[in-house]
Amino acid sequence: MDYRLNILGSGSAKPIAGRFQTSQILEIRERQFMIDCGEGAQIRMSQNGVRTSRLNHIFISHLHGDHCLGLIGLLSTFGMLGRVNEMVIHSAPELEKLIGEQVRFFMQGAQYEVRFEPFSPYRSEVVYEDKAVTVKTLPLVHTVPTCGFLFEEKQLPRHLNKPMCDAWEVPVAFYQHLQAGEDFITSDGEVIDNSRLTFEPTPSKRFAYMSDTAYTEKHLDAIAGVDLLYHETTYLSSVDPLKLKTRMHSSAAQAATLAKKAQVKKLVMGHYSSQHRDVAEFEREARAIFAESYAATDGSVFEY
Amino acid sequence: MDYRLNILGSGSAKPIAGRFQTSQILEIRERQFMIDCGEGAQIRMSQNGVRTSRLNHIFISHLHGDHCLGLIGLLSTFGMLGRVNEMVIHSAPELEKLIGEQVRFFMQGAQYEVRFEPFSPYRSEVVYEDKAVTVKTLPLVHTVPTCGFLFEEKQLPRHLNKPMCDAWEVPVAFYQHLQAGEDFITSDGEVIDNSRLTFEPTPSKRFAYMSDTAYTEKHLDAIAGVDLLYHETTYLSSVDPLKLKTRMHSSAAQAATLAKKAQVKKLVMGHYSSQHRDVAEFEREARAIFAESYAATDGSVFEY
Repeated sequence: MDYRLNILGSGSAKPIAGRFQTSQILEIRERQFMIDCGEGAQIRMSQNGVRTSRLNHIFISHLHGDHCLGLIGLLSTFGMLGRVNEMVIHSAPELEKLIGEQVRFFMQGAQYEVRFEPFSPYRSEVVYEDKAVTVKTLPLVHTVPTCGFLFEEKQLPRHLNKPMCDAWEVPVAFYQHLQAGEDFITSDGEVIDNSRLTFEPTPSKRFAYMSDTAYTEKHLDAIAGVDLLYHETTYLSSVDPLKLKTRMHSSAAQAATLAKKAQVKKLVMGHYSSQHRDVAEFEREARAIFAESYAATDGSVFEY
Repeated sequence: MDYRLNILGSGSAKPIAGRFQTSQILEIRERQFMIDCGEGAQIRMSQNGVRTSRLNHIFISHLHGDHCLGLIGLLSTFGMLGRVNEMVIHSAPELEKLIGEQVRFFMQGAQYEVRFEPFSPYRSEVVYEDKAVTVKTLPLVHTVPTCGFLFEEKQLPRHLNKPMCDAWEVPVAFYQHLQAGEDFITSDGEVIDNSRLTFEPTPSKRFAYMSDTAYTEKHLDAIAGVDLLYHETTYLSSVDPLKLKTRMHSSAAQAATLAKKAQVKKLVMGHYSSQHRDVAEFEREARAIFAESYAATDGSVFEY
């Protein structure tokens, strides 16, 4: 499959046996993105055999330790392994101040550059774009400024209707224009509508990452219909309501409610409090509301 | 047992499956000390059920990431768990500059203080002392300033010869003076030699930690006869000699040679390069020279 979410860590601040802090590797066709980087992310990558030769961008949702303290170890190891490609870190502006000194100190021999690309955690904006993918921030509701991320694949090329192309004698050099949606004009000046020469493209995919947050519907439109929604579920509904409120986290039921309202295709849960040891309880609680709910564990892989 | 070395990580810079970066918890009777703190140390503590309620001092041998990048996560988690006792970090002076900003940022809500107690890595000196234990630095030979540590228990109290104490009518209040080696003077003014009222104390114990270093005999006298010697063995003797030399590490054979010359009681090896997967090879190589050689793995515990 070409679309894959690798869970490196499914825990929250306090690591417990088998559960590291939050980190994920998202694969969108030939691209890789890391989302958050809790302590031990590089260890999990090694343990799970996740290769990251195509990883050039890391997105940090907020500056709580369990979402970013694995960065310096990871960057330092990449340097030691001879990495040469620049690594770009997208985060709130304070991160560079927090780890810049370490980057300079621990990566003195490294052959690659680390570039910080700060974004404001207070507004939604496109923070990454290439030919195939855009990434937009989704400001959340947490104890510190926090953003989720919406990864959207751009429209894929239309499929060629080869027999029709041959019938109209479309030159091969024009195929990419057809795939981009252009009409074809014959040597006689006749305009052949694109829809006669191509089929609809494979639908492009969308992934939303809702990091630490109290329940919020403010991004309902943005995430509507996404192929995969990751939503933090630090707690079960049985938790002390005051805890849920003051710590600004979500329950499995709340994540499932949002998934249902947004009509997403699949919900993945994680960032569990150490007080909840049995992740099956998260699935039970969520599936009562939204059937396609899955509780991540360290090392699990979700294709979408 | 009262003397115990818990291996949290037996690896070196590149973590591999089952092998975290260097970190150890040393227990000397009721005291605990952490020595080095590679990434994931807090994860291993949790996985191995190592309780650290009596841990108040952390010793960092040198400022390579695999020996200190687990600190901030550990300190931050301690804060979250409600720790109140001050934590003292003994290291080269640069460490505070490297992680001080993070300590301030990530521990804003913590109820305890972190105090940096810098030492010069260029000379041997006592960097810690309490009623029962002293810790002395052992400057090593590595690519950056690095120190080993010698943990020495002070002389334990002498054992009372109870029947003799009764025979000479020694008051109970004087027992601690006897245990400290004082003579007893009777009400008639007669001096009773301490040796008639007590037995020799249980021998006090010594542990030496030889962190990253090229082979060196400069601390042979200091570590002579220690109950337990930990010595890094990044490589086997089969490694490219240039690598051993330029990276300033030791082989299993070299560690065993030092252990033999110093007539230590037991040698524990660790800090293996990721290129060496089978730790049994370290034991084979070392035991050919020094029989009491043991290869640490993550989670192993050595009593001494």
